[in-house]
Amino acid sequence: MNVNGKHYYTLWFEDNKLKMINQPLLPHRFEILEYTSHKEVAAAIKTMVTRGAIAIGAAGAYGMVLACLEGTDLDEAKDTLAHTRPTAQNLFVGIKYIYDAVKDLPRGKRAAAAINAGAVYARRDVEHGERIGKHGAQLIKDGFKIETHCNAGWLAFIDWGSALSPIYAAHRQGKRVKVFVDETRPRCQGARLTAWELLQEGIDHTIIADNAGAYFMEREKIDLMITGADRIAANGDTANKIGTFEKAIACRYFGIPFYIAAPSTTFDLNCASGKDIPIEERDGEEVACMFGHTENGDFSKVRIAPKASPVSNPAFDVTPADLIAGFITEKGIIPADREHIAERCADHG
Amino acid sequence: MNVNGKHYYTLWFEDNKLKMINQPLLPHRFEILEYTSHKEVAAAIKTMVTRGAIAIGAAGAYGMVLACLEGTDLDEAKDTLAHTRPTAQNLFVGIKYIYDAVKDLPRGKRAAAAINAGAVYARRDVEHGERIGKHGAQLIKDGFKIETHCNAGWLAFIDWGSALSPIYAAHRQGKRVKVFVDETRPRCQGARLTAWELLQEGIDHTIIADNAGAYFMEREKIDLMITGADRIAANGDTANKIGTFEKAIACRYFGIPFYIAAPSTTFDLNCASGKDIPIEERDGEEVACMFGHTENGDFSKVRIAPKASPVSNPAFDVTPADLIAGFITEKGIIPADREHIAERCADHG
Repeated sequence: MNVNGKHYYTLWFEDNKLKMINQPLLPHRFEILEYTSHKEVAAAIKTMVTRGAIAIGAAGAYGMVLACLEGTDLDEAKDTLAHTRPTAQNLFVGIKYIYDAVKDLPRGKRAAAAINAGAVYARRDVEHGERIGKHGAQLIKDGFKIETHCNAGWLAFIDWGSALSPIYAAHRQGKRVKVFVDETRPRCQGARLTAWELLQEGIDHTIIADNAGAYFMEREKIDLMITGADRIAANGDTANKIGTFEKAIACRYFGIPFYIAAPSTTFDLNCASGKDIPIEERDGEEVACMFGHTENGDFSKVRIAPKASPVSNPAFDVTPADLIAGFITEKGIIPADREHIAERCADHG
Repeated sequence: MNVNGKHYYTLWFEDNKLKMINQPLLPHRFEILEYTSHKEVAAAIKTMVTRGAIAIGAAGAYGMVLACLEGTDLDEAKDTLAHTRPTAQNLFVGIKYIYDAVKDLPRGKRAAAAINAGAVYARRDVEHGERIGKHGAQLIKDGFKIETHCNAGWLAFIDWGSALSPIYAAHRQGKRVKVFVDETRPRCQGARLTAWELLQEGIDHTIIADNAGAYFMEREKIDLMITGADRIAANGDTANKIGTFEKAIACRYFGIPFYIAAPSTTFDLNCASGKDIPIEERDGEEVACMFGHTENGDFSKVRIAPKASPVSNPAFDVTPADLIAGFITEKGIIPADREHIAERCADHG
């Protein structure tokens, strides 16, 4: 999508390097980082230089491409990249895609094959994002007020996004929309990234504290809520950014349709239900402190909570399928039940 | 309650000055500020040097005491102090208490009478807090996990608090409790103040992002949620810190009893329902930026969101009475319906 009028991908492969937008510096500074080894890429995934389910899948895939260029043992590279973040299904999909494409080739032929496979993988992700937008835009009427949580925009994909893609598509169709952007503590991907994306596309939006969700659902009569997903179990239970579950409960209370937007690759048919999805526990410092931009243009970390107080920081929660109105996928809108998921996503199981 | 083992009030009157703990610096620095004019006190209420429903009531009362010492026109002082924050009922109760005590006296006799009335008012608030603790402790069993939102501890009162007072009482009775402290964006009164209070009293607690409420309600099987209140309408609808409504909805979903703790002075029988309670809209910078303590011991503000993005920042929301299991007051536990409220709180109407 657009950055100051120029088209960018979240990450891309060029001159045997993986280039990535440095997301922790957004919206304050737009910077591109370059990686030439799979270990650097693993570190970048862990520290969330790139984040968002589909983008880290692509980073995993390109990390494998770099491993092929480095001549690293494939299983070792796969392990290094897979042990970065445990929840997002697409990380494993991306790693496996390159692994499977090159594993039966002699070492000398892997690099070129991996680069080609990486390009195919990335192109597919871009297409998925665009198609999710087309299907999801059908749910959006002119004048709709839409709430979203976290960032499931193009920065979480390679382009377009999942939850924001229907909003972009509706906006380009000339529908007026207003987006309520949950700030999404603790990492504030909503306030930082979703707001920045919407600004770049010129879409009407307002940032709200996560706490204000129910307030605006009631007083502004929000029409629709859409979020992304990190992993969807076979029964439709969905892991996504912490706080998604509570928003889905609030939507149920107010009768607001709550949709999950994700490509079919996010479904993990090996997970019978949400109970089987591992939830990443991240450093409590993410809650106790805040990282941001100071008035003199530096970045600084400030402490909010007492140092002696324990903090618990699960990065994701699981929304049960019965709170979900449907899944907006590249294949269309799929009802949130085991039968429809099995029928439509079987080839990714 | 205790600060490093020494007993403090949140604010108190001494040597013709109002002294206040400077709450925006907590938990990082413990500092006492002094005020000698009602206008300074109005500014301190507005900028939240002191905050919390009952503490700002006491600040309003002591502001009126200072106005009497200054010889200011009573109605002018009343207006200045009342136009600081619109939602908390006790602000108006505190101001009116001193106003009524001195309004019929000649100017020369007002100061002494106001000081005496201020002392009576403060003593009553302390007693209310302690009695709320005794009544509320009956709801707490040994081993309970309790969630709370914002800070309705002694820093929001003069001593004891409302939502935390039952926890303090239960702890002193030897019951083991664990408190899940919502950080409470945007001003983080939970992470900063509630956590600090619990540390000082040696009570087991963990700070969580507001977004993690539903996650912990489900996975840790939270037994009870208690929050404070800024104003309670005649039908039981309750204005409290933004996010309270969403927690009450989540408690209903999980079948967790959700209680409001507040003295009977917080009931406003002139408000028929929550629709009649004005909601304060605060500066969007409170959401877009964070204020905290840097590693070198300074305080700094960091920006999180893009400067160009609009922010909406309602400070309170209204939880409908039917989500509230009951009101823990100094008079006992009152069911959340119009009839019981009218019967038990009529003298404060």
